[in-house]
Amino acid sequence: MESITLQGGLSDRDTWRATSCSIAKALEVVGTRSAMLTMREAYYGAHRFEEFVRRVEITEAVAATRLRELTAAGLLSRVPYQDPGQRTRHEYHLTQMGADLLPALLALMQWGDRYLAEQPGGPLNVTHVGCGEPVTVDVRCAAGHEVDLGGLGVQVSRTRKTPASASPRAAR
Amino acid sequence: MESITLQGGLSDRDTWRATSCSIAKALEVVGTRSAMLTMREAYYGAHRFEEFVRRVEITEAVAATRLRELTAAGLLSRVPYQDPGQRTRHEYHLTQMGADLLPALLALMQWGDRYLAEQPGGPLNVTHVGCGEPVTVDVRCAAGHEVDLGGLGVQVSRTRKTPASASPRAAR
Repeated sequence: MESITLQGGLSDRDTWRATSCSIAKALEVVGTRSAMLTMREAYYGAHRFEEFVRRVEITEAVAATRLRELTAAGLLSRVPYQDPGQRTRHEYHLTQMGADLLPALLALMQWGDRYLAEQPGGPLNVTHVGCGEPVTVDVRCAAGHEVDLGGLGVQVSRTRKTPASASPRAAR
Repeated sequence: MESITLQGGLSDRDTWRATSCSIAKALEVVGTRSAMLTMREAYYGAHRFEEFVRRVEITEAVAATRLRELTAAGLLSRVPYQDPGQRTRHEYHLTQMGADLLPALLALMQWGDRYLAEQPGGPLNVTHVGCGEPVTVDVRCAAGHEVDLGGLGVQVSRTRKTPASASPRAAR
């Protein structure tokens, strides 16, 4: 199996480590199973604490921790509500940041459907409501080519500001 | 923020839970930060035990556990090698199953680049080697439309074999 082509200052893999990698940073926020499944339920329309507890099948303590972390990180926002005769409580709404994590969860679903599901294609169909066609998550370049692992190249971002930090050893 | 449209038997969210969800199954395999970062290093071309330890910055014990789990799950294969004058050891090669997880990791990177990186766009550029254009992970339907959260619908898969298991309560 091929690998990603390491380009420029990254080409000698022994001289750098991915210390500030955006994958690692993302996993600091959503790197637990319960965080990911809490986001799944937010995508399915859950807002209230009890819904997350019930549908993710986690304890109230874990749900409270995950919802607090996801809110602090900016993926969910806390919105007050009040049922008649009850005290004010809070529910959780997706932010744009939270909604934009969708491709990662759909990519996991697509992969799980292909390799781990009990039935071919998985238990759920995801479609585009507008036209009814099935939805996939694709890796594609700006010119429209679908790209696999062997077709990918990675290099230090040209937006780095100082020449020093663009050296291989500082590459992230 | 909109949510996914739950269709057919799934439309009453109170009657079902995502108990055999392919996202959950995927996370049983790669639901830890160290598993995901081990896969990242495999994509960057790592094969040997010492490389995974050094580049993921995990202990030898954690690396051994992760590599054993990822091999058992089918994402990596163990291949014997022998350096001159040394005993036979094993290195780890991506399988097709492992390579096909790529969109999930790239989607996490793209999201981290956008929301969590210290510099705009993140530390690394990912491009299509063939044409040099930047690469993105997109959610797209078979008709070619880019689809966001509010444009997604989900229903019980039509490939389910028995009518009973297609009922909302059995939906996964």
